[in-house]
Amino acid sequence: MEPERSIQKFQGFIFDLDGTVYLGEKLIPGADKTILTLRNMGKKVVFLSNKPLYTREDYARKLTNMGIPTRASEVINSSYVMARYLSKVSPQTRIYVIGETSIINELQKAGFQLTEDPGEIEYVVVTFDRTFTYEKLNIAFQAIKQGAHLIATNPDRTCPHEDGEIPDCAGMIGAVEAVTGQKVEVIVGKPSSIMVEVILNVMKLRPQDCLIIGDRLSTDITMGKNSGIHTALVLTGVTNLADLKKAKIKPDYVFESIGEIHKEPAGQSVKK
Amino acid sequence: MEPERSIQKFQGFIFDLDGTVYLGEKLIPGADKTILTLRNMGKKVVFLSNKPLYTREDYARKLTNMGIPTRASEVINSSYVMARYLSKVSPQTRIYVIGETSIINELQKAGFQLTEDPGEIEYVVVTFDRTFTYEKLNIAFQAIKQGAHLIATNPDRTCPHEDGEIPDCAGMIGAVEAVTGQKVEVIVGKPSSIMVEVILNVMKLRPQDCLIIGDRLSTDITMGKNSGIHTALVLTGVTNLADLKKAKIKPDYVFESIGEIHKEPAGQSVKK
Repeated sequence: MEPERSIQKFQGFIFDLDGTVYLGEKLIPGADKTILTLRNMGKKVVFLSNKPLYTREDYARKLTNMGIPTRASEVINSSYVMARYLSKVSPQTRIYVIGETSIINELQKAGFQLTEDPGEIEYVVVTFDRTFTYEKLNIAFQAIKQGAHLIATNPDRTCPHEDGEIPDCAGMIGAVEAVTGQKVEVIVGKPSSIMVEVILNVMKLRPQDCLIIGDRLSTDITMGKNSGIHTALVLTGVTNLADLKKAKIKPDYVFESIGEIHKEPAGQSVKK
Repeated sequence: MEPERSIQKFQGFIFDLDGTVYLGEKLIPGADKTILTLRNMGKKVVFLSNKPLYTREDYARKLTNMGIPTRASEVINSSYVMARYLSKVSPQTRIYVIGETSIINELQKAGFQLTEDPGEIEYVVVTFDRTFTYEKLNIAFQAIKQGAHLIATNPDRTCPHEDGEIPDCAGMIGAVEAVTGQKVEVIVGKPSSIMVEVILNVMKLRPQDCLIIGDRLSTDITMGKNSGIHTALVLTGVTNLADLKKAKIKPDYVFESIGEIHKEPAGQSVKK
């Protein structure tokens, strides 16, 4: 914990979205001011999401509508990281996606060939899919039995939702792993080092020059800790002070909310 | 191994179905003769299946059509065992079934109230379901979050199929366990002691007076070993001699096929 040290020394600020910048459709008070202040100070800012349901353009539009003008290139989500990862390890490969229209279109645009023929599939890409069915599970199973790779966008068990929470990508991973008897080889989203690589590449900064700000210890803060990026927890999402006390992992900074950051240019931690 | 001991001493014969009595729609040669010979000797015969896709009546009809006249009361499948189990632990309870029409009808007929309202559900019953969807996963998740019990019919990873194999109940269990972070409390099908209890109750025999004949080490033979029922492996299903050699678990008898049993009234094991 470095409560007295300024966060001004950082050149790059990596913001988680849901629970950090907004909650569902509501901006967290002061988020806009904090982002604009940092940008005015010449800092680089990017936004992160593990959700493969929307494109980078969708997120940029949402933030812009909320008063934080944002370009798609400033957003890094797990479907974008998936496309980058696959382009690197196996360009133009034949894939089958357990996923919704958005990521399917994104991967198709990135040059991958989509197929439902198990004999042709080289990679089964498992993502958060509210249109998941037994038929999809069977295609994935038959493909993996014939040697296809098994990779996934994100490890999240559940996703926040207006009525509480709903099953996330872990459900689809659990089904495929159970029937194939095989574990996913790679999960590209937070807290994966694959996502970190894409972030640093987009920001053109070293890890030690960046601060990641998020609401989840198991993804945002863990990813920072694993990669040498400094970490700040906000208490507006899934983690409260009681959780933090019990947790083994400790962020470098703790803020009540993203809105506190612009008020405290010295970057003092409000709670230990 | 008791290769020289007669199987005539047993009073009850418990036959697995798929891989033992038939393969899909084809009777295994001599199965009819073996069953009829045993019945003529005054032995009790029942048939077992872990598949919750068909009713006991469906299996009785199939066997009768194949030349083995059978009553529904001589068939014990995992959906029947589930109905018996639930009737015992929580009669008239409110349940949600991840399953196909057949088991849903069977449980409804057994007096359980079906509901999709997570707040009302007391038991989530997970079964082999070729109509599984994200929506079903979400209902199960919301119910279990509110305290519903999680139970399942059978642990099978895959099910034999004309084109090879397809995902079985383990896929649905894997999805629900992964999103809820909870393990199924009870699986009633083979190799569960709950199924054994129903079998012995139906046969009115003691375990030591029975022989179970099946093709799977992990279900048929394991269940026998765990419960004091003697075991016979047939090599017409998923297990071959090489598998048997590597396996830790050893059946008391091994037959090339169910058809060998009536030819060898002394019940000699053809292979060690």
